[in-house]
Amino acid sequence: MKCRKCGGSAALELRRHNAAFCSPHFVEFFKKQVAEAIHKHRMFTRDEPVLVAVSGGKDSLALWDVLIEDGYRTAGLYLDLGIFDYSQESRARCEAFASARGQKLHVERVAEAVGAPIPEVQKVTRRPTCSACGLSKRYLMNRAALEHGYAAVATGHNLDDEAATLLGSVLHWQTEALPRQSPALASTHAKLARRVKPLYRLSEFETAAYAFLRRIDYIVDECPFAKGATSLAHKDLLNRLEEVSPGAKHNFLFGFLDKARAAFERLEDVQLRECSACGQVTTGEICAFCKLADQVKRRTGPSSAAAGMVE
Amino acid sequence: MKCRKCGGSAALELRRHNAAFCSPHFVEFFKKQVAEAIHKHRMFTRDEPVLVAVSGGKDSLALWDVLIEDGYRTAGLYLDLGIFDYSQESRARCEAFASARGQKLHVERVAEAVGAPIPEVQKVTRRPTCSACGLSKRYLMNRAALEHGYAAVATGHNLDDEAATLLGSVLHWQTEALPRQSPALASTHAKLARRVKPLYRLSEFETAAYAFLRRIDYIVDECPFAKGATSLAHKDLLNRLEEVSPGAKHNFLFGFLDKARAAFERLEDVQLRECSACGQVTTGEICAFCKLADQVKRRTGPSSAAAGMVE
Repeated sequence: MKCRKCGGSAALELRRHNAAFCSPHFVEFFKKQVAEAIHKHRMFTRDEPVLVAVSGGKDSLALWDVLIEDGYRTAGLYLDLGIFDYSQESRARCEAFASARGQKLHVERVAEAVGAPIPEVQKVTRRPTCSACGLSKRYLMNRAALEHGYAAVATGHNLDDEAATLLGSVLHWQTEALPRQSPALASTHAKLARRVKPLYRLSEFETAAYAFLRRIDYIVDECPFAKGATSLAHKDLLNRLEEVSPGAKHNFLFGFLDKARAAFERLEDVQLRECSACGQVTTGEICAFCKLADQVKRRTGPSSAAAGMVE
Repeated sequence: MKCRKCGGSAALELRRHNAAFCSPHFVEFFKKQVAEAIHKHRMFTRDEPVLVAVSGGKDSLALWDVLIEDGYRTAGLYLDLGIFDYSQESRARCEAFASARGQKLHVERVAEAVGAPIPEVQKVTRRPTCSACGLSKRYLMNRAALEHGYAAVATGHNLDDEAATLLGSVLHWQTEALPRQSPALASTHAKLARRVKPLYRLSEFETAAYAFLRRIDYIVDECPFAKGATSLAHKDLLNRLEEVSPGAKHNFLFGFLDKARAAFERLEDVQLRECSACGQVTTGEICAFCKLADQVKRRTGPSSAAAGMVE
């Protein structure tokens, strides 16, 4: 195999692009895909400060690396979920990454905001772990962006993540989730930061290769709660499809964005208001995060034993 | 396991319905599902003659059996695809089924209409076999219904078939195919028969069980050309999903029909006209079947050698 760009010996093959690249030209290809994503969806300009949500994994650190390399104004946001060693190790990677590059890293403890670390939240609510965790992360990312004045929150979601989420939404025809599946969600309220996914054009394999070639020290382990998650089952299905027809994931996600997403966009806008408890954006009276935090407080607080753990 | 209806020993379990049935009550359940499909989508009345497209397989013969049992006015249509022993054996099953029940069976040879049997059609066209075959079958089913005065053509497509077709359409976001995926397609032109799928609520396992319990002698072999077909790969994926979450196929298909299909319905109707060659319905000047037949004729006819097989 030869590099598509220079004809030199290729380091890796991208079957869905019917192409192979040497290491330097793969890194160039990767950066171009990110640049195209940012440009096509007007994610942010070079003048706008961007908050990069980093987990310590390959995707988010690769994203932060590309944005720094490309001269964007970035800072990191690490949300400490309180998941035992996993959280300690991933936080250490983020801190080392930031300090080696002289970048600011905001750190927030989920336990402080929601009342307990994620493993305990899991125990006291009947929600699936990933659901309460995802809700908390989205809430805290947005709040941090507003508090510190960032125009956009960028997350490391890659093509595999997005295709798996889409498959999940489609298998249940979650018509409310479908129009929100997008590489860029505009701010539709003064208290809602833009949300962007500059890696949506790149596969998990490609972000891993980029992180490896750029010698990024990331945490390889998956979150211990991810085991058995439906999103992993959906990734597995899509990988099987990809194996027999390279490009299947890409076509599924991009076909949706190009041809089908508009069909699900609501004719009437959702009415956004401010949560009467915390002031963040919600569609109801009290936002879902405050409800979760309240539930956690009542069940883990000093009076919970006396109250017989009744909700 | 006990039968949900009578408490007797259950013969089979339907995990997605969280139910089990003894043999007689399963047959009753099966018939009820067909009745509900016919009623809900107003497929046909007891006064309207229905043409049941039969292949000799379990699904279409099970369908014909239920309709006869339920007192509908039916006749069968067997399309002889000319696929070696497979076609001979499947035709024999259809003829035996019809004569044992004193029902009329129309037989049409695809080779006569399209100019060559399916294995030869495959060789002379660049289309995938299933594509040319499906096109020919849909054309001939409709033509036969019109010629013989049947109000509707009923096919044996089951839940697995429909879910697999939907998955294929969704993976490529075939926005033209999606609105046409329905258990009942109304006649939108005087030369277009209604097309209905009364088994769409029943899984492949359930039609096999019904055919077995009713002692229907059907051909077990798959069409020899089906091997490697994408529809089988999609069925396989859906079966994996079904295994971990029973009801996944059902929710995927029914969720689409209930919540998403309308989003894809075109605002403007497709303009139907009559093919200038055969008079059947088409959206263009010459219908796809006539184009296929013409291609087959030119490539297999006596002058094709002299003409150097040029298209």
